[in-house]
Amino acid sequence: MAQILRGAPAAAALTEEVKEEALRLRERGVVPTLAILRVGEREDDLAYERGAMKRAAAAGISVKNEVLPADADNETFCRVLEGLNEDASVHGILLFLPLPPQLDGERARRLMRAEKDVDGCTDGSLAGVFLNKKLGFPPCTAEAVMELLHYYGIPVSGKKAVVIGRSLVIGRPVSMLLMHENATVTICHTKTPDVAALTRKADIVVAASGQMESVDSGFLAEGQVVIDVGISWNEEKGKLCGDVLFEEAEPLVSAITPVPGGVGAVTTAVLMRHVIEAANGRR
Amino acid sequence: MAQILRGAPAAAALTEEVKEEALRLRERGVVPTLAILRVGEREDDLAYERGAMKRAAAAGISVKNEVLPADADNETFCRVLEGLNEDASVHGILLFLPLPPQLDGERARRLMRAEKDVDGCTDGSLAGVFLNKKLGFPPCTAEAVMELLHYYGIPVSGKKAVVIGRSLVIGRPVSMLLMHENATVTICHTKTPDVAALTRKADIVVAASGQMESVDSGFLAEGQVVIDVGISWNEEKGKLCGDVLFEEAEPLVSAITPVPGGVGAVTTAVLMRHVIEAANGRR
Repeated sequence: MAQILRGAPAAAALTEEVKEEALRLRERGVVPTLAILRVGEREDDLAYERGAMKRAAAAGISVKNEVLPADADNETFCRVLEGLNEDASVHGILLFLPLPPQLDGERARRLMRAEKDVDGCTDGSLAGVFLNKKLGFPPCTAEAVMELLHYYGIPVSGKKAVVIGRSLVIGRPVSMLLMHENATVTICHTKTPDVAALTRKADIVVAASGQMESVDSGFLAEGQVVIDVGISWNEEKGKLCGDVLFEEAEPLVSAITPVPGGVGAVTTAVLMRHVIEAANGRR
Repeated sequence: MAQILRGAPAAAALTEEVKEEALRLRERGVVPTLAILRVGEREDDLAYERGAMKRAAAAGISVKNEVLPADADNETFCRVLEGLNEDASVHGILLFLPLPPQLDGERARRLMRAEKDVDGCTDGSLAGVFLNKKLGFPPCTAEAVMELLHYYGIPVSGKKAVVIGRSLVIGRPVSMLLMHENATVTICHTKTPDVAALTRKADIVVAASGQMESVDSGFLAEGQVVIDVGISWNEEKGKLCGDVLFEEAEPLVSAITPVPGGVGAVTTAVLMRHVIEAANGRR
């Protein structure tokens, strides 16, 4: 029976810290503010937005919502984004990606100021992750993984970590964050011949391929810590599932994040910390 | 008996390609030009400069030497660097690092234009390596490793690579270059408890810790390809040595780079290719 690494208490603890910082900022006359820029009404964007707004309210962070219709043109979109860049009362910008096909996502990423890029989508933020420098912010999901490990007192330094997935949203940045904390990291991907042989040797497994329930007991071993970043709707089971086959993994390993309620639950709390850091001018 | 992966033929082949490109540029009235900015007279800088100038001559690339005294002040140094940034006849800038202590190396790295950063020292270049995008250029030594692997037809995709060292000059960028070519990469460093256990399982070992002759036969296994990036003066032996204990490694593994005459021999050829790419406006 594994320890279940629930996100909620980690998120609550982080939210408390953020709330205190937000209060201090307000006392100095600064209202920490997150702008959420959404184009269209995609269901997963709306769900994340609801979660972020609830978390912002709990943390004492003000939210400015900018919503454009799904068929917005590039000019309108860029004008709104530039407006948020220029607006000194906005400290962080959360932009839902991918954008609809008529909009130029690459241009949007180049346009956004790294110091307001609280979800780490710009080149500047990602460079900071690679260089281990405070340029922009790491993607929130990648940092949420680290936050969970810290909250539950799981040692990282000197440990073997195997990350499944090399995306710029999670696999690559979380690998760098783990390495900066002195883990020895192996990055697996679709061209890795025998992922299971590598993950079985790890102390920490981060499953971030987006392949639902692909990590079964054959990938895992006793004593491991398993962080599941995946979240997909399992039609057959009629519920949300991660990249890890939880019912096989949980009896075997020493600690595991649930899905939902694991990494995902911490992401918005990390986002709020980034807004506070941006408001404090730390980037 | 291992295959000896000498750098010279790889460098010569690359130089031939570069020379043809340089000729084409000259026919269009563009003289591909590398500026070498050196502060002081450090012996290793001078040695590299001589090598680069010889390679440039062979490749048909013009060199503009800027030399400042070892006690140059920040203002003078920055004025010279900015001059090279602005000078349209200069396509690439090689800046010897580290700078003397009175100069601000961080500022210099921020000042240099990524599109002229032919040895990949700026944040922009390193972001390009992480993101796998044509922003700036990878550090020449990291790319020289890939060049050697390609020249000798050593497959990378699907292979296990273990990199010893996580520096921004070589360990981290070469790990990313290997990963972008679909190797499964493990990055070892000073906090890795048992490097030898990891390297013994690799198909490709890249030794880049800077610890002279630290990789002995206990780290290696039959059938491996060993790339030695180290170069240090061995007082006892009275010769240059790499990070690998060559006399133990060579009888065991399937292929190995010599030191000197391995990776180092390819570095200036890669530098010249970067100058051509910069002159072609490819960044």
